[in-house]
Amino acid sequence: MMSGKCITVLFLVLGSGLGSGSCGKVLVWPADNSHWLNVKSILEELADRGHEVTVLLSSSFLGTDPTRSPFNFEVISVPFTKEDMASLMEDFLHMWVYELPNFSYWETTSRMCNLISRLVSINKATCDSVVWNEELMKMLREAAFDILLADPLVLGGELVAEKLGVPFVYTFRFSIGNTVERLCGGLPAPPSYVPASMGGQTDRMSFMERMKNMLFYALQDVLFHQFFWREWSQYYSDVLGRPTTLCETMGKAEMWLIRTYWDFEFPRPFLPNFEFVGGLHCKPAKPLPEEMEEFVQSSGEHGIVVFSLGSMVYNLTEEKSNMVALALSQIPQKVLWRYKGKKPETLGPNTRIYDWIPQNDLLGHPKTKAFITHGGTNGIYEAIYHGIPMVGIPMFADQPDNIAHMKAKGMAVELDFNTMQTQDLINALNMVINNSSYKENAVRLSEIHHDQPIKPLDRAVFWIEFVMRHKGAKHLRPAAHELTWYQYHCLDVLAFLLLCAAAAVFIAVRCCLFCCKKCGRIVKKKKTE
Amino acid sequence: MMSGKCITVLFLVLGSGLGSGSCGKVLVWPADNSHWLNVKSILEELADRGHEVTVLLSSSFLGTDPTRSPFNFEVISVPFTKEDMASLMEDFLHMWVYELPNFSYWETTSRMCNLISRLVSINKATCDSVVWNEELMKMLREAAFDILLADPLVLGGELVAEKLGVPFVYTFRFSIGNTVERLCGGLPAPPSYVPASMGGQTDRMSFMERMKNMLFYALQDVLFHQFFWREWSQYYSDVLGRPTTLCETMGKAEMWLIRTYWDFEFPRPFLPNFEFVGGLHCKPAKPLPEEMEEFVQSSGEHGIVVFSLGSMVYNLTEEKSNMVALALSQIPQKVLWRYKGKKPETLGPNTRIYDWIPQNDLLGHPKTKAFITHGGTNGIYEAIYHGIPMVGIPMFADQPDNIAHMKAKGMAVELDFNTMQTQDLINALNMVINNSSYKENAVRLSEIHHDQPIKPLDRAVFWIEFVMRHKGAKHLRPAAHELTWYQYHCLDVLAFLLLCAAAAVFIAVRCCLFCCKKCGRIVKKKKTE
Repeated sequence: MMSGKCITVLFLVLGSGLGSGSCGKVLVWPADNSHWLNVKSILEELADRGHEVTVLLSSSFLGTDPTRSPFNFEVISVPFTKEDMASLMEDFLHMWVYELPNFSYWETTSRMCNLISRLVSINKATCDSVVWNEELMKMLREAAFDILLADPLVLGGELVAEKLGVPFVYTFRFSIGNTVERLCGGLPAPPSYVPASMGGQTDRMSFMERMKNMLFYALQDVLFHQFFWREWSQYYSDVLGRPTTLCETMGKAEMWLIRTYWDFEFPRPFLPNFEFVGGLHCKPAKPLPEEMEEFVQSSGEHGIVVFSLGSMVYNLTEEKSNMVALALSQIPQKVLWRYKGKKPETLGPNTRIYDWIPQNDLLGHPKTKAFITHGGTNGIYEAIYHGIPMVGIPMFADQPDNIAHMKAKGMAVELDFNTMQTQDLINALNMVINNSSYKENAVRLSEIHHDQPIKPLDRAVFWIEFVMRHKGAKHLRPAAHELTWYQYHCLDVLAFLLLCAAAAVFIAVRCCLFCCKKCGRIVKKKKTE
Repeated sequence: MMSGKCITVLFLVLGSGLGSGSCGKVLVWPADNSHWLNVKSILEELADRGHEVTVLLSSSFLGTDPTRSPFNFEVISVPFTKEDMASLMEDFLHMWVYELPNFSYWETTSRMCNLISRLVSINKATCDSVVWNEELMKMLREAAFDILLADPLVLGGELVAEKLGVPFVYTFRFSIGNTVERLCGGLPAPPSYVPASMGGQTDRMSFMERMKNMLFYALQDVLFHQFFWREWSQYYSDVLGRPTTLCETMGKAEMWLIRTYWDFEFPRPFLPNFEFVGGLHCKPAKPLPEEMEEFVQSSGEHGIVVFSLGSMVYNLTEEKSNMVALALSQIPQKVLWRYKGKKPETLGPNTRIYDWIPQNDLLGHPKTKAFITHGGTNGIYEAIYHGIPMVGIPMFADQPDNIAHMKAKGMAVELDFNTMQTQDLINALNMVINNSSYKENAVRLSEIHHDQPIKPLDRAVFWIEFVMRHKGAKHLRPAAHELTWYQYHCLDVLAFLLLCAAAAVFIAVRCCLFCCKKCGRIVKKKKTE
């Protein structure tokens, strides 16, 4: 059912939603960098199936070249440049990787809040350029989109959808402490075995870890409510011209396409409008460029190691890169290292540096023994897809959490970027390459990933098309959205029951006292008689 | 992927579990009557895909004729006959339909407990005939089954699986108050919007209804723990030769194939090892027998009404059947009534009585306008599949709850079997036939049912084959199973935090008192000076 064009699918459905024979119009509110790389796979598939895809693109967007793409781009003119964004990202990265590890919890939180407030003002300026641009809004309204696909890392997609009266679907990695998914999406998360995102725990926690997890959830909820959401709620109310909140608007998402699956994720409760589509961008490996293939083949039985710290980390300090290169020079494998910085002096003859590597094709190569990664979700999923064990050197955002997952599942060894030494990297590589359990676990997770009723990309596209066909997916929306937080937790019922119990006890005690008094009087009376 | 034989599927999977090219061996622990009708669809598909299916069949089993089937039957000799079972079912039905409505809640519960204890002793005798039959157990062990498929309406399947060391999968409708799914399977069910099974509520509850729902959950949990499970836990411990509980053993199910879907079910949280496969037995309609088709065609533009009270209700009291027949005689539709009792005197010329009707083919006939049903899950799903509105006359078990679901979704009108009068039935039929909203809702639910990424039967079979290939589905099992109930709810953490808070308050108060005392003394001293 999923292989044909949308025309075929629409003919199969009992004539509702989009008319048979016509394809849909998709509006996209994307996030940048790796988020864009991921959502692009969905958009390409949608375009391939005949849908018209229009991306609302900020003029400062880094991730794409509008001239080489099957999508329409509606460029939003924003009051900051690509260079501003790149430099902000650089600051962000530098602070997270080099500065935060030396800070206390509260200093970290304060710095993060400061950074987030910079990002928020950029986000708001982007929203301003759309929602107050009447000409653009009129054009979007007239285009009569069937759906809006939003990444809530950049807020505003849901607001544009509400203003246009179009159903929207999220493509979502997570929010810190899963606060958005829980409080706005209704996702239940028992703190006893569901680790909060970015809390660094697994699903098996000690008493202290459970307490930490619970407090982490609570703290994030307070932070979101008190600091992030208030301002946005006012903004959303102003734009929509009626009192609302950010959370209420986000909660209207028809589907939440989560970018993980049970190979990566710890089993947890979820809702029918949450679909776990992790690894949807993964593909079988294509042949390597000739020169690269020759180098890979020259590794003989030792095979190769693929090394990349992702698209945001271009170079390291000289000391760090020398330390890393020295470690790599001491392993028997050949190494392909994606790196744009100065060539380290200690670089061994077994290591080659590339500006860019075909990461997925390399990870799918039969000679590949291990992957040294920063732990971005896209890269982790390529490793799972091809069953390659990892050495994780997490840098920022979800990366420490991602590597914690892979470590718990026995597919990765973790190193601390700030403290690791040459020998640590050598040991870690030897461990994942020579201790067979890592490869076995990687293959097991790969099997789980490949053995699904239908592929993640097909599931994502199915639900997007479903929402287009039926103008929503209301039958999957839990009634929890209609309840206040105290009704949801039945606190009003509990309070009432406690009150009843207290009243019953009170009356019983009064009755007893009354009887005792009465008896006492009778006894007294009898005595006096 | 799901269309080929198991051989094809196995070749596609990365060589784990069952060897490529071989098919699996499935052992089945079925429940009787409508449960068997449902599970048979799965077994037929498994047999069709080349798996060897062996059914452990009690000699008193009513639902099947072993001579006409593609499965092997291993008949278990039990100390009671088919006639005993039929008569017990008759008693059960009579009590539920005619007696219970006149009883108070506590009388109902006491009668139910009595009846359940009769069923339990039959269930236990069936288990005895398997688990203590060493020859049979040896034969089953030597047969080396890959999976056991159990319906927990009849306990023992999970026990046999444990004794044989075979992974097992449940095919499950529900337990009262969902106690088994919640307490043994880890399924979360916030009482604020997830109505307890057989509590008769929907997902939108008033304050009083939420309280009722919460207390219903609590009461069922106590009943299960105190009355049903204790004895079984002892039995399971005796059989397995180690201390265990029924709940712990049931909690080992690799997958829970639930016989509903979001067309019928209210959206609720669930776990990755729960798969909602409602309607898996539904099929497109086949042509009707010639005589029946002629009768149906003779209905003209008014169309027909299909009427069945299920496979367990054969006849009604004379008064009831006359009342019903009189109502049917007064509608313009032709009626096909499945009924084995005495022909009612008031039967109109528009109504024909049949011993048996091809229910699915009739519901899928273009002339069909409405379905009068007792509200069994199988029949309800056939109506959803074909988009036919219903008049529900629930009799027993899950039927009131099923009709409450369909009523809430706007696809059914409910009548009370004990109090309904001729005019009520006429009004109800007119309502579902002439008020277009019922048909519209039925078509909407039908569209939802048909518009799934893959069909429910294929999903059920996929996960059964998955468990066979991987010897389980451990990656879907939540860590909640490793926690005690108070750890699960973080009560130990809350108690500790409260203790800390109390200690902090206590110390603060003591400090204040100490300071006050000190100050007081100084003031006193100064005064005395």
